[in-house]
Amino acid sequence: MTSPTRIVVVGGVAAGMSAASQARRRRPEAAVTVLERGSSISYGACGMPYNIEDPQRDLDDLIVLTPEKARDERGLDLRLRHLVTAVDLDRGEVVAVDEDGGTEVRIPFDGLVLATGARAVRPPGIDGLDLAGVHFLRDLEDGRHLKQDLDDRVRRAVVVGGGYIGMEMAHVLTSRGLGVTVVEREPEILPGWGPEAVAEVRSELTAHEVEVMAGSALQYLKGDADGRVATVVTDAGSIEADLVVIAVGIRPEVSLAKAAGLRLGESGAIWVDQQQQTSHPAVWAAGDCAEAFHRILRKPAWIPLGTTANKQGRIAGANVVGGRSRFAGIVGTAGFMVFDLEVARSGLGVAAAAEAGFEPISTTIRQRSRAHGYPGGTPVQVTLVADRHTGLLLGAEIVGKDGAALRINPVATALASHLTVADLQQLDMVYAPPFASVWDPLLVAANQLSKKVERTG
Amino acid sequence: MTSPTRIVVVGGVAAGMSAASQARRRRPEAAVTVLERGSSISYGACGMPYNIEDPQRDLDDLIVLTPEKARDERGLDLRLRHLVTAVDLDRGEVVAVDEDGGTEVRIPFDGLVLATGARAVRPPGIDGLDLAGVHFLRDLEDGRHLKQDLDDRVRRAVVVGGGYIGMEMAHVLTSRGLGVTVVEREPEILPGWGPEAVAEVRSELTAHEVEVMAGSALQYLKGDADGRVATVVTDAGSIEADLVVIAVGIRPEVSLAKAAGLRLGESGAIWVDQQQQTSHPAVWAAGDCAEAFHRILRKPAWIPLGTTANKQGRIAGANVVGGRSRFAGIVGTAGFMVFDLEVARSGLGVAAAAEAGFEPISTTIRQRSRAHGYPGGTPVQVTLVADRHTGLLLGAEIVGKDGAALRINPVATALASHLTVADLQQLDMVYAPPFASVWDPLLVAANQLSKKVERTG
Repeated sequence: MTSPTRIVVVGGVAAGMSAASQARRRRPEAAVTVLERGSSISYGACGMPYNIEDPQRDLDDLIVLTPEKARDERGLDLRLRHLVTAVDLDRGEVVAVDEDGGTEVRIPFDGLVLATGARAVRPPGIDGLDLAGVHFLRDLEDGRHLKQDLDDRVRRAVVVGGGYIGMEMAHVLTSRGLGVTVVEREPEILPGWGPEAVAEVRSELTAHEVEVMAGSALQYLKGDADGRVATVVTDAGSIEADLVVIAVGIRPEVSLAKAAGLRLGESGAIWVDQQQQTSHPAVWAAGDCAEAFHRILRKPAWIPLGTTANKQGRIAGANVVGGRSRFAGIVGTAGFMVFDLEVARSGLGVAAAAEAGFEPISTTIRQRSRAHGYPGGTPVQVTLVADRHTGLLLGAEIVGKDGAALRINPVATALASHLTVADLQQLDMVYAPPFASVWDPLLVAANQLSKKVERTG
Repeated sequence: MTSPTRIVVVGGVAAGMSAASQARRRRPEAAVTVLERGSSISYGACGMPYNIEDPQRDLDDLIVLTPEKARDERGLDLRLRHLVTAVDLDRGEVVAVDEDGGTEVRIPFDGLVLATGARAVRPPGIDGLDLAGVHFLRDLEDGRHLKQDLDDRVRRAVVVGGGYIGMEMAHVLTSRGLGVTVVEREPEILPGWGPEAVAEVRSELTAHEVEVMAGSALQYLKGDADGRVATVVTDAGSIEADLVVIAVGIRPEVSLAKAAGLRLGESGAIWVDQQQQTSHPAVWAAGDCAEAFHRILRKPAWIPLGTTANKQGRIAGANVVGGRSRFAGIVGTAGFMVFDLEVARSGLGVAAAAEAGFEPISTTIRQRSRAHGYPGGTPVQVTLVADRHTGLLLGAEIVGKDGAALRINPVATALASHLTVADLQQLDMVYAPPFASVWDPLLVAANQLSKKVERTG
């Protein structure tokens, strides 16, 4: 009798739990051990800002699967508060510290899945990041601390970083009654987005009295006598603040992979093939720590998102027990909400498209979300990007209310299918006055952009 | 100097106005005459039920373009209340009666576009259809009459026909305070839809106290002493009613085309090629009077909808002045709203797929519209249909609230691209807790359905 396959998964959030569950589903006789350094598994980290908005909601609402269910229903050997310190590829063992007992354990594996995620960037050379009232937002504990910190004494917040998390936190903290300033080092918030989408977000922020200081670099944080943050100092002036959220990006957590000698990609994340296999045949990687094949760029990219983590996790889990699943890759779809505005993108913006060697053309249109004459419709703004010579659709950005973000999904589908603007014009989109206009905004944009396509040859 | 191209368009609503406007845009020197038998042009007929719901709204809200603008801004020779009585292909003339003057006019053309639309079916052999209070709902005048008829004396309505218009009118008349019974001849409402979607619509109707008599054939209508409808008699019993809406379907208006000897398709609508050209080289047709190429059936079909009419109209308009535009065809996308429920479909249902020679497999799942833990989410029900052996996606039906109908558009895009269920599983859909779940309902359905695909060979 052969011993069952021994699978070890490092990380128990999105990709890790997907991988572990999938491995057990595909091969029920496998012994699957999950090592998670935190106390919770399988939570929706992307939901943290929105959870923080509502003082009545428990942060544990975000937990999809409890440790008990993971053990009892999915049959996983789940070890919480286990910090993996090394991967010994020669001996096929993972070395971990049980943070409760303080003991070191060595766990042998036949197949290993790394789902170590990403960590928040600590801006280098900035004093005061450890003052009370300064928050990063990465894991559930970070969220818990921030939420606990939001009491009546806290009036003024500074959000450092004008990306997705920055926008969400500006909204959430405003909803919680704070005055909010967003500080962004780049000349404009939402770096990489087109000016048309940025303008819409800007006016939504202004309408809700969020101040934006773009092109301003954080210099240091100053505390009060109690050691709580009091002032944020930037090269464009100082801002009083009782609370600071640092959201200047995340980096893939690759220290284990690097120490084990696994190949990293150009992005710095773990290199994987489309089966999620790393450069070592017994090791797979998935989620925020790994790259993904970008279907428009046609090369690996690092765009860490929960959707990708879940897909990659399933595939890694299937393959670590002998499957041959293949991840088709990403097209760069992402979205967020800021106040009442839904913001979504897929594919490449104009600058990224030019950098990738395309000759981008673009157009921006506004069309009502509902039929002519139907009450309650709101404008949907669509920016469409394509290649001038082939007409190949390269990307889109959509901003609006009333379900606007969901309108990016046909774009994601079209990008995966390598459709052209001419193909897009012909799509048979749904129409009924309460939820659509007879010319869907995407079709209006495609009709408009088609005039700029210059077919050659 | 050659005389300008003379273009005649018969019909001035969706396809006709699209064609006329496009022809002028493509060739500004062309003389474009539009003959419309009604008094209004370019109105959103699909919006009529929803307009009738609101007593404060003017039915003219549905008019997108006024006759004045059509003349002044688009340079069209627009003739209202002109009934075309014949197309003389030998002489290249259209014969019309000016219904105001009573005179007959003959208008020569170099190119003709037929956009004669469809007419409501009058159920044959039914007495009482001309009683006061009995309504059809096809053109703006029908809508006006129905809306005017909705005064305080009207308490009980019967809607004959359980299709889209029947569902919309059941909703609208209930909103206007009437008690409503829907009578459907077939064993179930929404013939052609899957039982899962129908069950959802049924419970929405029940929740709003709409009675449904399915499998009941209309026999006759009985009037009161004033000649107003009072009783609807079916083979399953009689219903008291002050108002009756007959919505038992529409048929393509092809009498002119038929009399002129143009080829009709199997569906009875005008046969056209993908350039919208009819069997006569000087005649194009577009909209509800014409067939369209069905991209999944790979043959012509007749599914009359405003979206298709607008696309076909543009293409006919481009081609009648010498263009070579091509209509890629339809995939059968349609949707409607009944009370708070959005209902949408695209592609083929199980029965239609089997009839077309596929071996359909299907699955129905429910997934929340928003992230786990995010408040306000509602279930989205997705039924996905594919071919058992190739995994080719064949169709979907989606029912839910909270923007559910828009979720059909990625399906429409996938159908146009001939994606498989495996392709669908890999789509990079947008995720943010307020408007999506990390596994989009379509992906959940695709994951589920993929287990039934049996790849052969």
